[in-house]
Amino acid sequence: MLVSHRGPIEYRVDDHGRRFAARGGGGLVTALSGLAVNRPDVVWVAAAIGEEDVAMAREQAGKAFTAERDGGMFNVRLVENDAEAHHRFYAIFANPMLWFIQHYLWDLSNAPDVGGHEKLAFSEGYVTVNERFADAVADEVVQLGDDAVVMMHDYHFYLLPQLVRQRCPGAHLHHFIHIPWPQPDAWRVLPADIRMRLLEGALGSDLVAFHTERSARNFLLSCQELVDREVDFRNMCVEVDGRQVAVRWYPISIDVNEFERLAGGDDVQLHETFLRSRRRDQLIVRVDRTDLSKNILRGFKAFDTMLLDHPELRGRVTFLAHLQPSRQDVPQYVDYVDQIKRLVADINLKHGTTEWQPIDLQLHDDFAQALAAYKQFDVLLVNSIYDGMNLVAKEGVLVNERNGVLVLSENTGVHDELGAFALTVNPFDVADQADKLYQALAMPSEERRARREQCVAVVRENDLDKWLDRQLADIAALTRGVG
Amino acid sequence: MLVSHRGPIEYRVDDHGRRFAARGGGGLVTALSGLAVNRPDVVWVAAAIGEEDVAMAREQAGKAFTAERDGGMFNVRLVENDAEAHHRFYAIFANPMLWFIQHYLWDLSNAPDVGGHEKLAFSEGYVTVNERFADAVADEVVQLGDDAVVMMHDYHFYLLPQLVRQRCPGAHLHHFIHIPWPQPDAWRVLPADIRMRLLEGALGSDLVAFHTERSARNFLLSCQELVDREVDFRNMCVEVDGRQVAVRWYPISIDVNEFERLAGGDDVQLHETFLRSRRRDQLIVRVDRTDLSKNILRGFKAFDTMLLDHPELRGRVTFLAHLQPSRQDVPQYVDYVDQIKRLVADINLKHGTTEWQPIDLQLHDDFAQALAAYKQFDVLLVNSIYDGMNLVAKEGVLVNERNGVLVLSENTGVHDELGAFALTVNPFDVADQADKLYQALAMPSEERRARREQCVAVVRENDLDKWLDRQLADIAALTRGVG
Repeated sequence: MLVSHRGPIEYRVDDHGRRFAARGGGGLVTALSGLAVNRPDVVWVAAAIGEEDVAMAREQAGKAFTAERDGGMFNVRLVENDAEAHHRFYAIFANPMLWFIQHYLWDLSNAPDVGGHEKLAFSEGYVTVNERFADAVADEVVQLGDDAVVMMHDYHFYLLPQLVRQRCPGAHLHHFIHIPWPQPDAWRVLPADIRMRLLEGALGSDLVAFHTERSARNFLLSCQELVDREVDFRNMCVEVDGRQVAVRWYPISIDVNEFERLAGGDDVQLHETFLRSRRRDQLIVRVDRTDLSKNILRGFKAFDTMLLDHPELRGRVTFLAHLQPSRQDVPQYVDYVDQIKRLVADINLKHGTTEWQPIDLQLHDDFAQALAAYKQFDVLLVNSIYDGMNLVAKEGVLVNERNGVLVLSENTGVHDELGAFALTVNPFDVADQADKLYQALAMPSEERRARREQCVAVVRENDLDKWLDRQLADIAALTRGVG
Repeated sequence: MLVSHRGPIEYRVDDHGRRFAARGGGGLVTALSGLAVNRPDVVWVAAAIGEEDVAMAREQAGKAFTAERDGGMFNVRLVENDAEAHHRFYAIFANPMLWFIQHYLWDLSNAPDVGGHEKLAFSEGYVTVNERFADAVADEVVQLGDDAVVMMHDYHFYLLPQLVRQRCPGAHLHHFIHIPWPQPDAWRVLPADIRMRLLEGALGSDLVAFHTERSARNFLLSCQELVDREVDFRNMCVEVDGRQVAVRWYPISIDVNEFERLAGGDDVQLHETFLRSRRRDQLIVRVDRTDLSKNILRGFKAFDTMLLDHPELRGRVTFLAHLQPSRQDVPQYVDYVDQIKRLVADINLKHGTTEWQPIDLQLHDDFAQALAAYKQFDVLLVNSIYDGMNLVAKEGVLVNERNGVLVLSENTGVHDELGAFALTVNPFDVADQADKLYQALAMPSEERRARREQCVAVVRENDLDKWLDRQLADIAALTRGVG
């Protein structure tokens, strides 16, 4: 069984008012779909998010049902939540609270001010939704058999493992956390009872999984410091009431064949033709959601610094920033987009000419355009403050057609795999990023080619199947261990 | 030998243009003076900070000399630094950079932008000053004997132990760090080469000391994660090239007798009379520098929340905030004072009457007035975001005359000693602080008395002599161990 906040299918209505099954949003859905498509024995439990999802959930009396998407069949159970509880859960507690904690984004002398609002978002939002899911999961475990394997996903469900364990002591519980796990002090912005409940909730699992060793280690440190558990750093496990909780890491990847197919699409080529027609000598690209963790401002500041240090590049290099507006219901994210716009305007005013705008800011969501940018970059900038994995780096190097160079933050999960072949940057060091952008642009073509080939080899080798297979093997081993 | 940025004596000129020896500023000088006064065998090496210090240093040809202060004799060596190097060292690199890192104050999505300016502040400021000090210390070691004990203090001198060790391999090196040591990720805002040099510099010591076990543990974690050293959490030590560096904690205290004497002064009583004349039923007090780590805004917000939750307290409780402006050469600190003023104005406008201003903001440095507030509080609020120790809590409970209750942040060093008898708050939880302020105000007098007596007993027991003696005993033991 799979559990995630967003499921494989989102129901919408077309122009004629007819309901249709669209692909659920987000990279996680893509990664997990292979595990569930055409598998009648796998149920995917997800939240009913929009109105049509809710209507569908009600028609199915909240039970699992079979649905088609992109020619594949999925076994889905949509969990309807009280709208206010879901809002508190999603738009207050999960984002920004947990997201900011886990990416070290709180400006602690100013925010957050934890008060009744935030505590209610936990007790009458996060807890409520996790309990609703626990009931749904328990109901499915009854169908599948007491020793069912339940794979839960991400920071929306820290309480779920413990709640499911209480309901189904025989189930095998696996929790994958896709965002970074920070060091214990970051959790201290939450009241002690809340941070302890989150930790103890997650320790309801048999296996807690991350993308990187750093996150796994930080999780063990947190269990030690915040809930006083006995942890074993050598065997990477935590003892909880006589039970061993394994803590592991599995770097996620992309579906290489599918991604290459998408990159070859006609709409992508149309955008490429346009990019080529406007092309200067070289193109720096970034593709991101407008998330504070992505470090978009410092990326532009680094480009500004580089143009100051190397005025000969003016008019010859363009920085195409393809940014997808994100979480515009959260005030910090609205401010961030404003900051981005202002900074871009300043830099374009400072260096630009009537023929050349140094930064080409594309503030919308257009997958084909992003793919065209991936194919056409000379330099791809991924300078995240912290990032669980960052699939942009893997996607970009895979389909790029110009032997583009990856400039990569040392605080991304993907740095473990591609750091050796990228130019590493410290995300807080604007001078370093300016230097590395320049170095990437000036790199001899032979070296560019060699680096990109090594990156691509790693992406092909560590593919999505490997990510899933390693987890399934570990789950099988743990399941046997249980008896 | 003692080494600290500020020494026991600061030279100034009086109204007649005559130089005089004033007491050096800061709590650290008070704590260390007992160790050096009337001890001709102890040299105290400190920076020549003002113009008169520099003049004095030059007259003494940069060598040690004997000087009187408050009737005691000190053996002082003032180190003159290049003014620009000292500014970079002090006002850019040490503050805000290191201070913000160690108190988790950086708003990472916005700041810092590490660039040429910051790197120069390290290479041509922090390094330069540490090297100047190393030369001075080495010169004194020659006088004292190769196996001299050198006690270095605080975050200004992370490079010094290694630099002194290179010059004087036989000296016994002890480094006390008075601010919190954060978890390793906090250091990642610095370029890798700088953070490694700081760590390796500090590991030049034989003994690295903090106020708390948490800081000591975080230091070991940092050695493990950031410079890949073999650490031993059981014996609290790090192996460095075959040498063992001990990591310990000694909670600092105050000079109890001296502090009680000061609290009895005539000027203090004058302020007390004034406070009593304006007194409402109850008085909440805070005494702090206007430092972002002190969490002044959330303290006021909590008071605001309390007045909203308990309108019956309006007109009956006043919050006296005695705030000493701090580091007004650093832009973040100037902004912070502005934020404080605006928030106080808002809250006073919201709840105040012509007869009663809820918050009495005293924005200046007046030790006697602060002591009067200590004696007269019903509740003392110490809600620091993070704090190495926080001596305000110890000072306040010691001299208080109203069985005042301490409301204390769980992230202060002093919480280890006084937390059990205080009301603990989470510094980010405004609702919690509002509740605890109310609970403190409403506490029965018997309980108030009992709690304060227990606090005072701890402060008397763990006094400054004990702090020094434990360190000297450990240094002696380590020195013997060396042979």
